[in-house]
Amino acid sequence: MNNSPTLRVGLAGLGTVGASVWRRLASQADLLQQRTGTIVRAMQVAVRRPERARDVGVPDYLVVNDWRTVATNPELDVVVELMGGTTDAYEFISLALQNGKHVITANKALLAERGAELFQTSLKHQRHLLFEASVGGGIPIIRALREGLAGNRIISIHGIINGTCNYILTRMEEADLEFADALAEAKREGYAEADDSLDVDGHDTAHKAAVLAALAYGFWVHPQALYTEGLRHVEKQDLLYARKLGYRLKLLAIIRTDTDGAVEVRVHPTLIPQTNLLASVRGVFNAVLVRGDVAGDTISYGRGAGGDPTASAVLSDLAQIAGHWPNEQKARNVGHEALHSRLKTMDEIMSRYYLRLTVEDRPGVLADVARVLADHQIGISSVIQPETHVGETTPLVIMVHDAVEAKFRSAVKKIAAIPAVKGPPVHLRVEDFE
Amino acid sequence: MNNSPTLRVGLAGLGTVGASVWRRLASQADLLQQRTGTIVRAMQVAVRRPERARDVGVPDYLVVNDWRTVATNPELDVVVELMGGTTDAYEFISLALQNGKHVITANKALLAERGAELFQTSLKHQRHLLFEASVGGGIPIIRALREGLAGNRIISIHGIINGTCNYILTRMEEADLEFADALAEAKREGYAEADDSLDVDGHDTAHKAAVLAALAYGFWVHPQALYTEGLRHVEKQDLLYARKLGYRLKLLAIIRTDTDGAVEVRVHPTLIPQTNLLASVRGVFNAVLVRGDVAGDTISYGRGAGGDPTASAVLSDLAQIAGHWPNEQKARNVGHEALHSRLKTMDEIMSRYYLRLTVEDRPGVLADVARVLADHQIGISSVIQPETHVGETTPLVIMVHDAVEAKFRSAVKKIAAIPAVKGPPVHLRVEDFE
Repeated sequence: MNNSPTLRVGLAGLGTVGASVWRRLASQADLLQQRTGTIVRAMQVAVRRPERARDVGVPDYLVVNDWRTVATNPELDVVVELMGGTTDAYEFISLALQNGKHVITANKALLAERGAELFQTSLKHQRHLLFEASVGGGIPIIRALREGLAGNRIISIHGIINGTCNYILTRMEEADLEFADALAEAKREGYAEADDSLDVDGHDTAHKAAVLAALAYGFWVHPQALYTEGLRHVEKQDLLYARKLGYRLKLLAIIRTDTDGAVEVRVHPTLIPQTNLLASVRGVFNAVLVRGDVAGDTISYGRGAGGDPTASAVLSDLAQIAGHWPNEQKARNVGHEALHSRLKTMDEIMSRYYLRLTVEDRPGVLADVARVLADHQIGISSVIQPETHVGETTPLVIMVHDAVEAKFRSAVKKIAAIPAVKGPPVHLRVEDFE
Repeated sequence: MNNSPTLRVGLAGLGTVGASVWRRLASQADLLQQRTGTIVRAMQVAVRRPERARDVGVPDYLVVNDWRTVATNPELDVVVELMGGTTDAYEFISLALQNGKHVITANKALLAERGAELFQTSLKHQRHLLFEASVGGGIPIIRALREGLAGNRIISIHGIINGTCNYILTRMEEADLEFADALAEAKREGYAEADDSLDVDGHDTAHKAAVLAALAYGFWVHPQALYTEGLRHVEKQDLLYARKLGYRLKLLAIIRTDTDGAVEVRVHPTLIPQTNLLASVRGVFNAVLVRGDVAGDTISYGRGAGGDPTASAVLSDLAQIAGHWPNEQKARNVGHEALHSRLKTMDEIMSRYYLRLTVEDRPGVLADVARVLADHQIGISSVIQPETHVGETTPLVIMVHDAVEAKFRSAVKKIAAIPAVKGPPVHLRVEDFE
């Protein structure tokens, strides 16, 4: 073992994840050497505030203030980007690849926005760009897709990939809270940031969805082109009716292709059957269901965030490089295929729907509503009329069969115009995993 | 792509899995070439009955009758062992490795029995011995342990890794069946073999447990040295009481190490909290919970058996070799570490227990039982006395805190001797995942 080669690692960024990576490179050093036959050693750390390095226990002589120093240091073999943001991080990764370094990143926002360019640079310089830490924290989902399911065409991916949102939905259902109260609780518990928009409005999930879509289908969907609907409008009464119908609400990233090669990538609250394992994923945990054409359905579950789980993913990328070191492996593009497929618009997607109306409590209303749906060739699969009357009005909950989104929306518009329908209709998309 | 190298594959065995591998090598050929840059092609198939080859669609000129032909064919680079059994299969794999071929196997019984020798041969000849298909079918659990969690010390593994047993337990609970009826149903549905012992008595689970233990801790536990308890004695009333207490019954493989390096490997019906995701794994599905010291808990879930899911695992092993082909990778031993650890005896293990007694329906019995437990320093966590009286006797269900197995068994022996305790006590081990 004394003849082991050394893989020289530079870190950029020393936030929660950076600090965990630093600590875990030390605590797991023997293990990594034993498993890979290579000494994996942090040799330089770029951090803006030197006092942070001291707090984390990085010795002064390893610390530099400028990330450019790490990206260009000829004494480093691989750099880990944990700075966050999309401007400096982009420059850092590009510069490091150009300087012949392999790069490991946890930065889904950056990948989603500029992944295509970064992988081009990676291939041009034949350096790895690894990103296990970008989706699902400690869950080895990237490796499962790239390697474990290498013999499968990916039919679809359904992911619960934001712990904050899943915590909020779990608490809304289990503690009977409205969204605002569950969000406040999540903040008190440290599961949500003061600036909650990245999580709660679905953007973080959308970034990760773009990464998973690139892996599965080989092309990058810009997050702004990707339908993203968060949790702010979710009401606890809908979780309750959904439960009566055998469903639970989750914020899902849905990625799917159909036979003509068009791809759906979308993020929105989604009703899923209670019997599906994803429905049992509680609290801050993440899970990703992958449907392959050979393996069928597989699910990977675990801690989707936090310093140590994310550090575990970074270490697995380091171990991949270290396992062959100093032999070089061929750098790979992000995804298996480069289909250059077309992204479906939301108007085109096909879904089942949950529709809740507030209607006058008198006979004939259901007939009027059913008529509009029938006129749009939309079939009803079930109806419940809960007994919570509010004055003269009552809720009417309808589950419909597969419909094209544009058609469904046009039907809802017509339904909203029925005089007996009071207030705006509420709808949620439904996935039955059939 | 026309300059792609070719990886020449030989198959031995054309049962359900062999036939799926044959078909999937054809249907996924383009995909594999695209993803690995290598043409992966079946060049020879050994099968005892030529008519089987015809049924599966293997052209005559590829078929040989003797597996030795495949193992020694200089025109093959890798062979896939799907013959089953432990005698010929052992000879086949050894011969192939000696003849410079990489080997892929799904044979957990063989690995459990003679894995140590086979990996010695693999390392001596520097050829891969890959076995993703040996545990968990289409779930890439071997890769998750070896690569995805490469930076983690494995604290414990809990696996539902036999679909037949999980189907039976699911049906006992959900359809309120006794074991014999659920087994009969499983046979009718094609989920259990006519010869049910391999599955139902836990041996198949034990074989897979030995493979997982070797992966996690680097040493092979012989299946005969491994405590194995199947389902035959399980009664539906215990599933019912367990549910009242917040638990569900699963046949688990449990693999765990403690700070002194001793390792537990055991297979038995186990009560687990309903809130743990493993409790929601229904029917023939499999799931493996891995607790790592950095990533925390991760779970991998999917189809644990069947032609296609197992073929998916075989293809992923082929893709691993093909991804580097024709460059050679260093062959690896089975596990990360070679701790040569000691296997704990069942007497030494520590567990929580569920204890059901049939007692006379009169005051004072609980006091007598509690006294015996207290004398053995075993604490009670809860007691239920269900209202199903049978004549003069009544069930008494007690959950106890952590106890050493030997001590618990000695307490149970004393409790059985209390005059008011009628009939043999029933006990089940409990895992709380704390």
